[in-house]
Amino acid sequence: MRSHRTVSRLGIVGFGAFGRLIAEHLGGRFDILAFDRAGPPSAAPAGARFAGLAEVATCPIVILAVPVDAIAEACRAVAPHLQPGALVLDVGSVKLGPARAMLAHLPDAVEILATHPLFGPQSARDGLAGLKIALCPLRGTRAPRVAAFLRRALGLDVIVTTPEAHDREAALSQGLTHLVAKVLAGMEPLPNRVTTRSFDLLREAVGMVRHDPPEIFEAVTRGNPFAGDMRRLFVELAQGLDRELGPESVAAR
Amino acid sequence: MRSHRTVSRLGIVGFGAFGRLIAEHLGGRFDILAFDRAGPPSAAPAGARFAGLAEVATCPIVILAVPVDAIAEACRAVAPHLQPGALVLDVGSVKLGPARAMLAHLPDAVEILATHPLFGPQSARDGLAGLKIALCPLRGTRAPRVAAFLRRALGLDVIVTTPEAHDREAALSQGLTHLVAKVLAGMEPLPNRVTTRSFDLLREAVGMVRHDPPEIFEAVTRGNPFAGDMRRLFVELAQGLDRELGPESVAAR
Repeated sequence: MRSHRTVSRLGIVGFGAFGRLIAEHLGGRFDILAFDRAGPPSAAPAGARFAGLAEVATCPIVILAVPVDAIAEACRAVAPHLQPGALVLDVGSVKLGPARAMLAHLPDAVEILATHPLFGPQSARDGLAGLKIALCPLRGTRAPRVAAFLRRALGLDVIVTTPEAHDREAALSQGLTHLVAKVLAGMEPLPNRVTTRSFDLLREAVGMVRHDPPEIFEAVTRGNPFAGDMRRLFVELAQGLDRELGPESVAAR
Repeated sequence: MRSHRTVSRLGIVGFGAFGRLIAEHLGGRFDILAFDRAGPPSAAPAGARFAGLAEVATCPIVILAVPVDAIAEACRAVAPHLQPGALVLDVGSVKLGPARAMLAHLPDAVEILATHPLFGPQSARDGLAGLKIALCPLRGTRAPRVAAFLRRALGLDVIVTTPEAHDREAALSQGLTHLVAKVLAGMEPLPNRVTTRSFDLLREAVGMVRHDPPEIFEAVTRGNPFAGDMRRLFVELAQGLDRELGPESVAAR
């Protein structure tokens, strides 16, 4: 039986790995409606009911859990159905592009909060407590309440920032990790006997992102306007070191 | 009072950070004599007595705990004093060069075991158990006994290999970690707010080696004949990715 307390409806547009993760963690607290343009998954989603896009978009809270390059399209699709005062959030790995898209394509009467949960299904395996989420309040007044909910109810470490500051930092943190992961993948087979603790940690670090879906790699590289400069600096520094160390090895005399 | 059991004398030539670490861990099991060409340290070394090089070199076991590029010189210095049947070991981060130097400069009557403890004072802070050491038996029959001692008495994970196989693996494991550490040091300040778990691990990994003494960096880069190829491949892969991703970012449409 449904509790007598009013349970808010929460709409999830895009039911990929992250949409499912949201449903798992918020299913007990919200009445979750989900839409995916690929149709309902064959297995019944945990804690969510599938519905048409129009119905999902009428929820008081709507989370756009689509890839970064599909956010503008999702905004245009939900816009006619959104209720005045609704809160719309995204969960993209970069923030300047999605923020621009949401501000451009969502109606003036809705509140907008751009977010970047700095974790995925793998890092959230042991629960959400202590994981980070970046919030970029774009329009409306509810960001502090959302931040308080994420802190108290989910135990997340909430970072309030701007899309530009976020993307500058993420170009280095996420961009670097994905770049090093791709480079190391190209150097396989990597050793597993003569290894140090630091190398084992390095492999663990890149192992966490190397099976990320290609949309994530796209977003943190091409989707981040600061990622290109980071990559150029990375390549220059590596080349500089290689030149400095020279082609010849100096074996023990 | 000295125990009635015979306690073997163990000589350490070179009393830097690693020589001290050996003395700390073996001081209870051996009568340790140490020599450093810089003279005795001002503070009394834990578990070791300082002596002249000639006396240290007469121990039945002599560990050359000097930088890789000083091993040949150390071999020549101890050679006249070594006892027939003595066991000489090094602890260098690469193995082909030191192996060549020891085989060339040590008398035929001594046994030689090249080693690479895959840890340093920092990773050994919480004890040695589970840490790795590579052994390359070069001359004599005592390697299996040493391996058994390192496993049973110190809890080390012993990897028996050859100098070439060691250096090929280490070029990737140690070489890569140090290379990534140097590149990341050149990109500072690195973000500390918008970070993922994988980026935090990456920083932890490079943090473990970035304060290593320059001799270690020299050894794992210039001292490893396979490190140059590894670096070139690393740079090529990073350049290839940068070219592939292009100079322009594709922000969300």
